[in-house]
Amino acid sequence: MSHPAHPELARTGPIAFAGSPIDRADLIRVDPEALAARMDWRAKVLLLDGLLPQIGEDGMLQWGTLADVDPEAELVFLGLLEEKACFAAVPDDGATGPAYAMPRAWAAIQQLSPPDLAIYGGARSLVDWHARHRFCARCGSATKPAKGGWQRNCDNCQAQHFPRTDPVTIMLVENEGRLLLGRQPRFPPRSFSALAGFVEPGETIEEAVAREVWEEAGLRVRDVEYIATQPWPFPSQLMIGCYSQTDETEITLDVEELEEARWFTRDEVEHAVSHARGYEDDGVETAFTAPPPTAIAYSLMHWWLEKTK
Amino acid sequence: MSHPAHPELARTGPIAFAGSPIDRADLIRVDPEALAARMDWRAKVLLLDGLLPQIGEDGMLQWGTLADVDPEAELVFLGLLEEKACFAAVPDDGATGPAYAMPRAWAAIQQLSPPDLAIYGGARSLVDWHARHRFCARCGSATKPAKGGWQRNCDNCQAQHFPRTDPVTIMLVENEGRLLLGRQPRFPPRSFSALAGFVEPGETIEEAVAREVWEEAGLRVRDVEYIATQPWPFPSQLMIGCYSQTDETEITLDVEELEEARWFTRDEVEHAVSHARGYEDDGVETAFTAPPPTAIAYSLMHWWLEKTK
Ligand SMILES: [Zn+2]
Ligand SMILES: [Zn+2]
Repeated sequence: MSHPAHPELARTGPIAFAGSPIDRADLIRVDPEALAARMDWRAKVLLLDGLLPQIGEDGMLQWGTLADVDPEAELVFLGLLEEKACFAAVPDDGATGPAYAMPRAWAAIQQLSPPDLAIYGGARSLVDWHARHRFCARCGSATKPAKGGWQRNCDNCQAQHFPRTDPVTIMLVENEGRLLLGRQPRFPPRSFSALAGFVEPGETIEEAVAREVWEEAGLRVRDVEYIATQPWPFPSQLMIGCYSQTDETEITLDVEELEEARWFTRDEVEHAVSHARGYEDDGVETAFTAPPPTAIAYSLMHWWLEKTK
Repeated sequence: MSHPAHPELARTGPIAFAGSPIDRADLIRVDPEALAARMDWRAKVLLLDGLLPQIGEDGMLQWGTLADVDPEAELVFLGLLEEKACFAAVPDDGATGPAYAMPRAWAAIQQLSPPDLAIYGGARSLVDWHARHRFCARCGSATKPAKGGWQRNCDNCQAQHFPRTDPVTIMLVENEGRLLLGRQPRFPPRSFSALAGFVEPGETIEEAVAREVWEEAGLRVRDVEYIATQPWPFPSQLMIGCYSQTDETEITLDVEELEEARWFTRDEVEHAVSHARGYEDDGVETAFTAPPPTAIAYSLMHWWLEKTK
């Protein structure tokens, strides 16, 4: 399935890590015989170095065959690409932590084309989940992959485990033409981005947005609107981008979460976004360093700049 | 925080399990001393019978004190309700499976007021997660609760584990004034509802909607719109309600997932929704049995009926 049109996408621009050209081929995944029939010399295997992509001279993801994989490694079925079955091998170790704490991963993803980025992101989330979930959380026994790697089963207690996708709200907050942005202590100097936080059991997206802005900045928001989502593979978040408004301006900072939060004018946001390149400062004098185009926070700011043009 | 206004809620009506009056009190949760100071005779404990709510003669959730809890039980901090700290104890066993396969839970939730339903749902998801996640998925060792029960830590490998919230898309599909609804084999006779499926790693909400409708009914959708979310505690889904349109009408059924899928006219949907009570047929002759008002599928149909009035 190609990326389905939805009304906001024209205004956000493309979302990084979305739009994978891989057909997930659900019917093959759930059918052990059909899956086995695809595991021959024609199968493609995404070449990884641990969790990092292997990138060719042409800047593209590198693919091998099943012969390139350690015969002991667990394999996951990513789906079909131009009718060819695609797999990836689970590495020995997984990883957690934000993308900017992984400079090699970050450098790699900056090189990839949008479809390759989406393929890599989906594959990375899945193999990383396997690497960090080899045991049954219910009884502690070792588990085994099933359904082409979209499930793990425990033979001891019969529990079934599924890959995690953690919903996170990330929100623009506007007060009369200005945006609230914050910086976490671990951000590079001068970087500001949209506030964000995990959706917890027992709340809606809108409630999570309101709680997060309240907790981190002490502001009450109204009229929360969903804008767009991004699958984020560090390790496996569903970033749910929202827009909200507030009538309050006095920020009460949660110093555990944020080092600073400030209001920025439309001009400041526009200038910073037009110079956004990566998490590094490119030397141009802007009010702050905007998130890179691979982050949904960038897409949300782009959307807001279009909306308020 | 009370339920924040968002633009669609006026049209969906209230969403069951949303709008919890509990303040999650993040600052207490992360501060062991502040939390300990709240664990005295004033603390309230939600009384559960396993995972079922204990409901009083007045139809309300029953609360006790810390003296009512097995001293060996793990406790989770739900937050503050009218300035009082609220806890719940983790039962011996968790549960999975849909709500309608749990007739006692189903009967109980039908009795509760909206705020009690939201309190119970959030608490149930959290204690159920603990009951099913006592071991480290990374190394198989026993884990211990931390941060008031919003985390579990592994002393063996230092992994941190967080409660799951699994995003699920649930979607109305319209073709020229008719809605596509389906029935799973486990549904009661004549019940039809919106199609639904888990968001997978590597896809957006809109992509998940398009994939699900394609896999289950063989239809290509366009213009996917987010409408509303519901936290669903069986065991812990974030139900993301969407609306989409299609220009195709010929259904190709995925017989593994659905027993039947059909197009219903606006009149048929309106009549069925006006008789929706529960998963049981109330005897009135409708084209199908609609989902109960506690399900977001009901709210989506209500929204669509308002929109197409
Ligand atoms: Zn087990
Ligand atoms: Zn461990």
